[in-house]
Amino acid sequence: MNTYGKAFRITTFGESHGDAIGVIIDGCPSNLALDMEFIQRELNRRRPGQSKIVTQRKEPDQVQVISGIFEGKTTGTPLTLVIWNQDAKSKDYSHIANQFRPSHADYTYQQKYGIRDYRGGGRSSARETAARVAAGAIAKQILWQQGIKITAYTSQVGSIKLTTPYQHLDFSQIEQNDVRCPDPTLATQMIECIKEVRKQGDTIGGVVNAVIENTPSGLGEPVFDKLHAELGKAMLSINAVKGFEYGSGFDGVEMLGSAHNDLIYKDESGEARTRSNYSGGIQGGISNGEDIYFRVAFKPVATLMQDQESLNTQGDSVTVTGKGRHDPCVVPRAVVIVEAMAALVLLDFYLRNQQTVEIKP
Amino acid sequence: MNTYGKAFRITTFGESHGDAIGVIIDGCPSNLALDMEFIQRELNRRRPGQSKIVTQRKEPDQVQVISGIFEGKTTGTPLTLVIWNQDAKSKDYSHIANQFRPSHADYTYQQKYGIRDYRGGGRSSARETAARVAAGAIAKQILWQQGIKITAYTSQVGSIKLTTPYQHLDFSQIEQNDVRCPDPTLATQMIECIKEVRKQGDTIGGVVNAVIENTPSGLGEPVFDKLHAELGKAMLSINAVKGFEYGSGFDGVEMLGSAHNDLIYKDESGEARTRSNYSGGIQGGISNGEDIYFRVAFKPVATLMQDQESLNTQGDSVTVTGKGRHDPCVVPRAVVIVEAMAALVLLDFYLRNQQTVEIKP
Amino acid sequence: MNTYGKAFRITTFGESHGDAIGVIIDGCPSNLALDMEFIQRELNRRRPGQSKIVTQRKEPDQVQVISGIFEGKTTGTPLTLVIWNQDAKSKDYSHIANQFRPSHADYTYQQKYGIRDYRGGGRSSARETAARVAAGAIAKQILWQQGIKITAYTSQVGSIKLTTPYQHLDFSQIEQNDVRCPDPTLATQMIECIKEVRKQGDTIGGVVNAVIENTPSGLGEPVFDKLHAELGKAMLSINAVKGFEYGSGFDGVEMLGSAHNDLIYKDESGEARTRSNYSGGIQGGISNGEDIYFRVAFKPVATLMQDQESLNTQGDSVTVTGKGRHDPCVVPRAVVIVEAMAALVLLDFYLRNQQTVEIKP
Amino acid sequence: MNTYGKAFRITTFGESHGDAIGVIIDGCPSNLALDMEFIQRELNRRRPGQSKIVTQRKEPDQVQVISGIFEGKTTGTPLTLVIWNQDAKSKDYSHIANQFRPSHADYTYQQKYGIRDYRGGGRSSARETAARVAAGAIAKQILWQQGIKITAYTSQVGSIKLTTPYQHLDFSQIEQNDVRCPDPTLATQMIECIKEVRKQGDTIGGVVNAVIENTPSGLGEPVFDKLHAELGKAMLSINAVKGFEYGSGFDGVEMLGSAHNDLIYKDESGEARTRSNYSGGIQGGISNGEDIYFRVAFKPVATLMQDQESLNTQGDSVTVTGKGRHDPCVVPRAVVIVEAMAALVLLDFYLRNQQTVEIKP
Repeated sequence: MNTYGKAFRITTFGESHGDAIGVIIDGCPSNLALDMEFIQRELNRRRPGQSKIVTQRKEPDQVQVISGIFEGKTTGTPLTLVIWNQDAKSKDYSHIANQFRPSHADYTYQQKYGIRDYRGGGRSSARETAARVAAGAIAKQILWQQGIKITAYTSQVGSIKLTTPYQHLDFSQIEQNDVRCPDPTLATQMIECIKEVRKQGDTIGGVVNAVIENTPSGLGEPVFDKLHAELGKAMLSINAVKGFEYGSGFDGVEMLGSAHNDLIYKDESGEARTRSNYSGGIQGGISNGEDIYFRVAFKPVATLMQDQESLNTQGDSVTVTGKGRHDPCVVPRAVVIVEAMAALVLLDFYLRNQQTVEIKP
Repeated sequence: MNTYGKAFRITTFGESHGDAIGVIIDGCPSNLALDMEFIQRELNRRRPGQSKIVTQRKEPDQVQVISGIFEGKTTGTPLTLVIWNQDAKSKDYSHIANQFRPSHADYTYQQKYGIRDYRGGGRSSARETAARVAAGAIAKQILWQQGIKITAYTSQVGSIKLTTPYQHLDFSQIEQNDVRCPDPTLATQMIECIKEVRKQGDTIGGVVNAVIENTPSGLGEPVFDKLHAELGKAMLSINAVKGFEYGSGFDGVEMLGSAHNDLIYKDESGEARTRSNYSGGIQGGISNGEDIYFRVAFKPVATLMQDQESLNTQGDSVTVTGKGRHDPCVVPRAVVIVEAMAALVLLDFYLRNQQTVEIKP
Repeated sequence: MNTYGKAFRITTFGESHGDAIGVIIDGCPSNLALDMEFIQRELNRRRPGQSKIVTQRKEPDQVQVISGIFEGKTTGTPLTLVIWNQDAKSKDYSHIANQFRPSHADYTYQQKYGIRDYRGGGRSSARETAARVAAGAIAKQILWQQGIKITAYTSQVGSIKLTTPYQHLDFSQIEQNDVRCPDPTLATQMIECIKEVRKQGDTIGGVVNAVIENTPSGLGEPVFDKLHAELGKAMLSINAVKGFEYGSGFDGVEMLGSAHNDLIYKDESGEARTRSNYSGGIQGGISNGEDIYFRVAFKPVATLMQDQESLNTQGDSVTVTGKGRHDPCVVPRAVVIVEAMAALVLLDFYLRNQQTVEIKP
Repeated sequence: MNTYGKAFRITTFGESHGDAIGVIIDGCPSNLALDMEFIQRELNRRRPGQSKIVTQRKEPDQVQVISGIFEGKTTGTPLTLVIWNQDAKSKDYSHIANQFRPSHADYTYQQKYGIRDYRGGGRSSARETAARVAAGAIAKQILWQQGIKITAYTSQVGSIKLTTPYQHLDFSQIEQNDVRCPDPTLATQMIECIKEVRKQGDTIGGVVNAVIENTPSGLGEPVFDKLHAELGKAMLSINAVKGFEYGSGFDGVEMLGSAHNDLIYKDESGEARTRSNYSGGIQGGISNGEDIYFRVAFKPVATLMQDQESLNTQGDSVTVTGKGRHDPCVVPRAVVIVEAMAALVLLDFYLRNQQTVEIKP
């Protein structure tokens, strides 16, 4: 279904070229004074048309809150956030009304539902993630009050990779360039790569890294709802994601246990800490208080400005011609989506955790 | 919580050294004649002591069904499967009663619950996965009746990698060697590697690949509950997993969209097919009928036969000494767990899908 | 939370005097041509100002669908229905900003959330049920296609009772009078009673009966989610409801089992039928194909045009003075709400049932 | 499904004449020292054979905990409680293998699942409620620690009614007689009535009243999951229940609002209290701190020692002959089940409430 979360539960709605997209948030703690400008700033980080390396669709993505707020504060009732679609040029899509675009969801939606809103991909459009970013911006505010900070950044575009450990990066550089890579030199190369790819009417993939700092220990549930399993699901639910790894990830496979184990010691303040952090801040599915970090792989965008072989809805061979306004690479706009989903996962576990720990004999 | 699935819902219970582990299955279709021997055979594939490269704990892992079956058939009521623990040498663990083993869940459980069953890791032990394998064996039987086939195999141990595409492998070789790698030559190397690592009292990681063949199109839900997002969550919920990728995965990042897109054509039988399958059989979170394939990364086992720095529950520095019977590498026994979890995900979507498509005007 | 249903899942939002109220429907089957005029007609049956015996607030209650429809048909994606508030005279409520109205939710919301939108009761207002009626109107359309028909009517206002069994009533009379009682003589008395009560600035309770005809057997789940348990919950979730009984209900308590048991026979068409129907169409929580019927008790409306003793938010004694536009008796407008909730329960089980029965060996 | 609750979630399993019945409890707070003798005492209150007015099946109903406890305390992992069936005389039921007993679940289970365990009603047997009583006994212990007390009692058998308000009853008398009515004179009459009915091979209905004292304000959720809606669902899910009312209930229908409203004042200790309590301790679905009280109607037991008309599974007319050991009236044993379900509802909301209120800016 279109719902994520148990304690802080969001349900998103809307199609790329319908009237609006939006989100209901159920379970938001009451009495919070929401910073609406922050929500807008987060939406602006995802917004089309924000730079030269993203799609040029012109959407202000202004959010309207139509329930759940009274005199500037949350009331504990559902928050409904609506973003009205403005620059929905549906006629751009009439040519694909009866065609399946390769590696899009056109064919699978048709198979599953027997009908699809073909305009801009309808519900399968990444435009749906604007609703997640709005909800995530609220989750972030609540997490900040608890001291939890989430940062994502572009670590790879095509074969251009940032391999520096996150501890040695200057996160203040992330928003200083269009591709959101904290290394300015690599950022320039990545931007060049994206421009070059676009010139060819082509697209390219990328990787977004994320770090969650100052997480309390005890978040996450054993067995199925492990903290990293939910993070993985949340990331894999973002359009175009093909892989997720946390802590040592796929590289950890080649390590010996004696090198991989995170030895435990007591720091000056008497806190239990680990000497290394290959666990990625999570052990047995539960946070241990160390930094949580993970990587998310995005495939190249499926919409190309090139001709491609496909079928139409009648099953005849057709040539699909690329049209419309699209991103040559998704990662610059995906950074804030990764942060939003991470915030939603963390806050959900944070609130669920109250249940487990608060009862007193 | 300890529940997975919506339509075919399993809840597992039990601790490594408690009376028993087991699973309740709610939502199993009625009137099915279950093949109990198959369930046992699957458990045997996960069972400790099955070969020289796994832990030597002696557990027959025999399953008892105490509800939900009548005259050999499922009745639609909850199936309860219990596996009684036999060879639970709890005294092996008395030395860690007050110590946190590095990179285990000891510290995080203590932080979350204020108490932990330290014997063999209690609930955090991978022994819990026997319950999943039993449930997965039932899910597999149902999927087979629909023609869906799931195969997993070891593709990497340490740095020894099987890079052959799955289409060129002989799956009948998988169960012919102790490490469950379909390439006999590599299998021998992997087994040697594991033996060597064990000799040093150390452990090593690995990768399990999986392929799901003959999936109907239309499985999976848009937005949050995408088929690959649920597969990812299910895999990441398995003990020791650090990463998941499907289709082109992390490698797809470096590809151009024009190379990555799976062009669509009509095969001889009139079916829509794709020329390549970088999508991994899933588009927009919904299966398209092509093979689903993915990879799961396992870290090296945390239990070592070496001394390690840690803290005790009083916060004092201690040296944790490795004892007990453990796996030097988890992947040989993980192959069947990966299959089980994949079966649980697939069947759940299969059953949920009935809702969406069956109503007729 | 603000969600009802599993397969056909609705989430309502909005406050009485906020911007709007509305509902998201997730799980609506695709490819349905919705009859929007029918939805509006149902809303008109609940609408304030529809007759002289209900509140005179002027709300057109016109519904806008902002997602989930494409070219007039459902697409399987979330349907979002919004009803913008028009005649929200919030100043009518400024006098209760700091007062707790007796037998309203003012005090409990304040205790639970530490804040409340006092305007018209905010989220606790029965205005929220307009969203349920809109969703129920869609559920009804789908059920009709399966032949299932739901009818509710007023059976009691104060001490004026309609005791005729439903089989002997002329349901076509229900909408012929303002109180929605199928017996015209009693209807006149009920209307007089309501008018008299209003003249005194007072309110009165009532009972709504409902009948569900042509339900297939097999709907409902054993144990906790019995069909009548869900119906009961759904009815009790409607504002002002104090009791629910089905089949023989509270009167059945005094019967002997030999009189109460519904003997089974085969009718002319070869169908299994019962000679009586004290079971109310449900046995063991599952429908048996006979008519389902139940009764719902509504207390007198809490808002009076009289002075009442209470406290303010500072804990001081105050006199609450009745103001605003309110219903002297809730049942005339509640009839359609009862039908809507019944439709939501039935359809949810109908869709869930597909899972159970469709799998074939 | 077979699960109840969100934060304190129970899943029951087992059939009347299978190996065992039992329950998994997921979400039980950790570090609780459970009083196992109390659990057994509660089971004894539900146990068959406990007195001359209940069924004479001999079941010790001894509970075995097979997971979730370590050194006498809960660990936060799933608690599994098993009650092995002992006196399961399945041959008593061979005569109904192919017959549908009137007003039982035989026909509906057959219709829904295409198969049924006919022995003692299988899963539809009230024996399943033993598992609820065991889980409820744990919930009660936790609620007691918070000061919340739940008391149920028999208020009606056939037409013999206890009409005294609960405030004037001596609850210590409840367990002093076999029918569990706190009025000794009426208790004697009720017992006589039950004996008389049994002599005729017949059965009779009854009502159980319940009171929840010392509930904190703020329990329950607005809109669908109102506290009384969940209580209603929980009670209606008990075998043989036909009706539920709380506070003023069906009688409140005839009251004027001016009489029904609960005026609010400040008591000596400065607490907000209401002068009357027609609301039954719940306003807007949320507890206000006053006593919660409600009534539950049970139909006469369907199993009679008389011949009855019915059909067999082939659709032929048959005469069903009463056999086996059954209760002539369900309420004496139902009292503890009502308490158990109330405890499960209350504790679930209690734990869920931690989420809403604990977050601090």
